Amino acid sequence: MTADIRITRAVPGDTPIILSLIRELAEFERLLDQVTATEQQLRDALFGNRPYAEVLMARIGEDVAGFALFFHNYSTFLAKPGIYLEDLYVRPSFRGRGCGAALLRELARIAQERNCGRLEWSVLNWNQRAIDFYRSLGAEPLDEWTIYRVSGEALGRLAASGESSDG
Amino acid sequence: MTADIRITRAVPGDTPIILSLIRELAEFERLLDQVTATEQQLRDALFGNRPYAEVLMARIGEDVAGFALFFHNYSTFLAKPGIYLEDLYVRPSFRGRGCGAALLRELARIAQERNCGRLEWSVLNWNQRAIDFYRSLGAEPLDEWTIYRVSGEALGRLAASGESSDG
Repeated sequence: MTADIRITRAVPGDTPIILSLIRELAEFERLLDQVTATEQQLRDALFGNRPYAEVLMARIGEDVAGFALFFHNYSTFLAKPGIYLEDLYVRPSFRGRGCGAALLRELARIAQERNCGRLEWSVLNWNQRAIDFYRSLGAEPLDEWTIYRVSGEALGRLAASGESSDG
Repeated sequence: MTADIRITRAVPGDTPIILSLIRELAEFERLLDQVTATEQQLRDALFGNRPYAEVLMARIGEDVAGFALFFHNYSTFLAKPGIYLEDLYVRPSFRGRGCGAALLRELARIAQERNCGRLEWSVLNWNQRAIDFYRSLGAEPLDEWTIYRVSGEALGRLAASGESSDG
């Protein structure tokens, strides 16, 4: 059933469709109000002088069915890089045909090629369909950890804190 | 109280002490059995041709009091890089003197210099002392997300899956 899925590396011309997919994903995650990305920003981040992320495209025939956006993290315990999958999205009309598994399989292959110890990503706790799917592929939840974030004005406050008392 | 803390960029000669601190941190986290890092691997990752992470050292006088190891992640919603703090550790005998806050403040400054939208890290759920400290600095828990991981043999199985049926 997966014979007609092609996984390819994104090229600069894919930037507009990638941004559309990011917005579709954010809408599904009920987080569309958080998306401020522009096409130029995305192109710079993916294809500029200092790329911050890489993208795989899933195509069925001429159609873009989904994408995976990832970058490297690093495990100090293993002293090895890992792959962190920031976004994985398959368009609703293309679901159930193996695109998600094909994208994750290709990421696992890239992880092995690059001597990475881990492939990791974050899942919204209410997304049971995704959780069941990921567990079926051998993924384990890191239930004992919680991510903390400083952003926006709090980041500026933290950066400026202690300046007067440090003299 | 923080006037005698110096935060500096790690240099290659700091590699042995950084590895010692990584092992101390793992012991505190009850995860020492997971540490397989060697000094050479760590030096390559921090100071090699393709650095995967950066390190800040906290010193008090001539003593190394702690460290922060970080790398860049990327937010597709913001279309901006972020900073992910993989390890933050202050040696027990130097706690309560502001080293942790000084390291986080410097990371927030670096985040702003590099036009990053976020500073993020993960915390063990039982580490209430750390959680209280991070919240006091303005960090918010991303309670609605769980990290999933594929590693070890499961990563190899995922990489090899579907090869026969795709053929």
